Amino acid sequence: MVDLNLHSAYNTLRTTNPLIQCITNTVVQQFSANVLLAAGASPAMLDHEADAAQFARIANGLLVNFGTATSHQFLGADAAIEASLAEGHPWVLDPVSVGAIEYRTSRIRRAAGMNPTAIRGNASEIAALAGAGLGGRGVDSTDEVDAVLPAAAQLARSTGAVVAISGKTDAVVAHINGTDHVVRVHGGHELMPLVIGTGCSLGALTAAYLAGADTASERLNVVVAAHAHFAVAGERAGRDAHGPGSYSVAFLDALHAVTAEELAGARVELSSLESVAS
Amino acid sequence: MVDLNLHSAYNTLRTTNPLIQCITNTVVQQFSANVLLAAGASPAMLDHEADAAQFARIANGLLVNFGTATSHQFLGADAAIEASLAEGHPWVLDPVSVGAIEYRTSRIRRAAGMNPTAIRGNASEIAALAGAGLGGRGVDSTDEVDAVLPAAAQLARSTGAVVAISGKTDAVVAHINGTDHVVRVHGGHELMPLVIGTGCSLGALTAAYLAGADTASERLNVVVAAHAHFAVAGERAGRDAHGPGSYSVAFLDALHAVTAEELAGARVELSSLESVAS
Amino acid sequence: MVDLNLHSAYNTLRTTNPLIQCITNTVVQQFSANVLLAAGASPAMLDHEADAAQFARIANGLLVNFGTATSHQFLGADAAIEASLAEGHPWVLDPVSVGAIEYRTSRIRRAAGMNPTAIRGNASEIAALAGAGLGGRGVDSTDEVDAVLPAAAQLARSTGAVVAISGKTDAVVAHINGTDHVVRVHGGHELMPLVIGTGCSLGALTAAYLAGADTASERLNVVVAAHAHFAVAGERAGRDAHGPGSYSVAFLDALHAVTAEELAGARVELSSLESVAS
Repeated sequence: MVDLNLHSAYNTLRTTNPLIQCITNTVVQQFSANVLLAAGASPAMLDHEADAAQFARIANGLLVNFGTATSHQFLGADAAIEASLAEGHPWVLDPVSVGAIEYRTSRIRRAAGMNPTAIRGNASEIAALAGAGLGGRGVDSTDEVDAVLPAAAQLARSTGAVVAISGKTDAVVAHINGTDHVVRVHGGHELMPLVIGTGCSLGALTAAYLAGADTASERLNVVVAAHAHFAVAGERAGRDAHGPGSYSVAFLDALHAVTAEELAGARVELSSLESVAS
Repeated sequence: MVDLNLHSAYNTLRTTNPLIQCITNTVVQQFSANVLLAAGASPAMLDHEADAAQFARIANGLLVNFGTATSHQFLGADAAIEASLAEGHPWVLDPVSVGAIEYRTSRIRRAAGMNPTAIRGNASEIAALAGAGLGGRGVDSTDEVDAVLPAAAQLARSTGAVVAISGKTDAVVAHINGTDHVVRVHGGHELMPLVIGTGCSLGALTAAYLAGADTASERLNVVVAAHAHFAVAGERAGRDAHGPGSYSVAFLDALHAVTAEELAGARVELSSLESVAS
Repeated sequence: MVDLNLHSAYNTLRTTNPLIQCITNTVVQQFSANVLLAAGASPAMLDHEADAAQFARIANGLLVNFGTATSHQFLGADAAIEASLAEGHPWVLDPVSVGAIEYRTSRIRRAAGMNPTAIRGNASEIAALAGAGLGGRGVDSTDEVDAVLPAAAQLARSTGAVVAISGKTDAVVAHINGTDHVVRVHGGHELMPLVIGTGCSLGALTAAYLAGADTASERLNVVVAAHAHFAVAGERAGRDAHGPGSYSVAFLDALHAVTAEELAGARVELSSLESVAS
């Protein structure tokens, strides 16, 4: 069985302050950068095709999110992914809006075949990428997390990635030693989906946590830790918020304030896909 | 005479949660997305020329704002506008900085000839687009709302659009059944112009409100409702703000908190251009 | 000896409300615009190669920051810089991430040779641009401000620019009448580096302050004033903040609230490089 150690994952993040290259959409660049800084990492959004690969070799991890990708950003991402893989650095794919539109979908499917370390999306996106759904409408999700666990497990097996599904309760799925592990992460707040970038920036933080993981079990552990960091901070932020504006502010404060002990106390449940499905 | 029913416009927005494609400038993408989410709509900023048209057919409305347009975004906007028109979806033109610079101005004039459902700008921009002024300097406005009402009415007649002018008191102008209707919307706050994107995001919310309107009278009504939503929330936000930073946060909270009753109580005045001019 | 008059610099900014063209990275566009608006200037982010030069002739100052530059933005910046120089308008270079990656570095070095009025970066960036360091990792700084003062002085001499180094204590260096003047600016807060764009937006505010300066001494004075404005507001914001989210909000409020008297009371120290080095 896999053991979780969120305390250790958090301490690694805070002591190493990993540099994360985010090739991501322009809507959420500022928020994603602030999330990384608040949580304990350093952001760099460089995506020019002439420099992206060189920077990927310097960075400790990479996020790829094609939400507003230009043709040039697609080229920059290809180069950065290849450089990350060559260096053995982790890279995270956020398949935002996969399935809804053709050209973007073809580029996301292509990226999914390039050995992502993790894939993070909402239920509709994970289902669409696994070939089991029709895709959502932009960043909204119309499927439920539990309903797409089998699709997520299939995606984890076919890509080798840890697959994370964001929703009311998040789920992280990994195929390790012949078993489909499922970790549910409880927390967050109903105002969180009303702040743009709370999903996309979780992909960035996932890359930051992955910078400290070497084995399949560690990768599962740190992806859960990233989601738990969001869940605990998201819950705390809800106590101080009067609406989505103040929630966004309180969330950044909370990401920074969360301690290793609070993270270790996050409400996570580890099980196997078989036990979940039964 | 046209009747206003802001209560109904608000309820339609909140119950339908329209998906709005924003082809807009990168400065205000995040804020515009947060405004849509707070007010009761869903944003998607997709603008790639290969996908923009397909997405416009899925979305319920479109905003076009060329504030930081690239050559590729201009192409994406052309495709999205044509697809929106083919589907009968509303689209809103924000002629930001029209008149000040040549190439952008030529592209905005071209878009204005593509049957926008509504046009929203400040007084200088509306005057420049109508051919009656020299244009402002970026997002600043150097003309007064009342002074450009005749130009706005001319623009409404020549384009078929509802024309909205943002200023200390906003004005919405529509040519319906041979009459130039003018609705003034009071509210807002002196700190609002110190938050970037409060104008641009009103264009996005206007597109969201338009998703529920079928007739010329309804279109006038919902454009007024969008402006009243901003005016009421903007006034409320001023009570809690200590400066432009906290005003921005309070404004998003207020957009979310505004009720149908509060919106129906907004200070709006309906008249005709003739009575205004006399 | 050079005299500082921060009071006068502030009053010029607030009474003239300069229009600043920011050709800057998409991560910090929103924050930089809000900083300019809060402090007393007007932003415009226009960077299209077809319009950038024409707009530079209208604007009162220009910021160039290649943090997420595309090939098109590089062309737009070239055109805008040339137009600014032709009009005698000030322009500020932010050499973000110079040294770390080749193509961007080559473009930044090229821009540094185009007579920037001021250069603002962190210690690693200033050292790398002066040829005395290896560059940082993105926006982080690994060198100390004091250690790079000689490199900054060399850069000021070779480019003719006022050179500003951001750090725990900022330093502004200018070569005037054969003397290397150094002004240290104390203030700010430990949360400031956890808010993305606090460095980049200081470059924008520096351009705004420079719009009112004609002589070498005045240019040094207003660059110090821009940094003092940040230092005073940054210190005040720290009193109200609970973390990086609320710090960002309080900082914008404070930029707006700072008075000429408070700015004049900023903790600045004027000396020469010789006395600093001895």
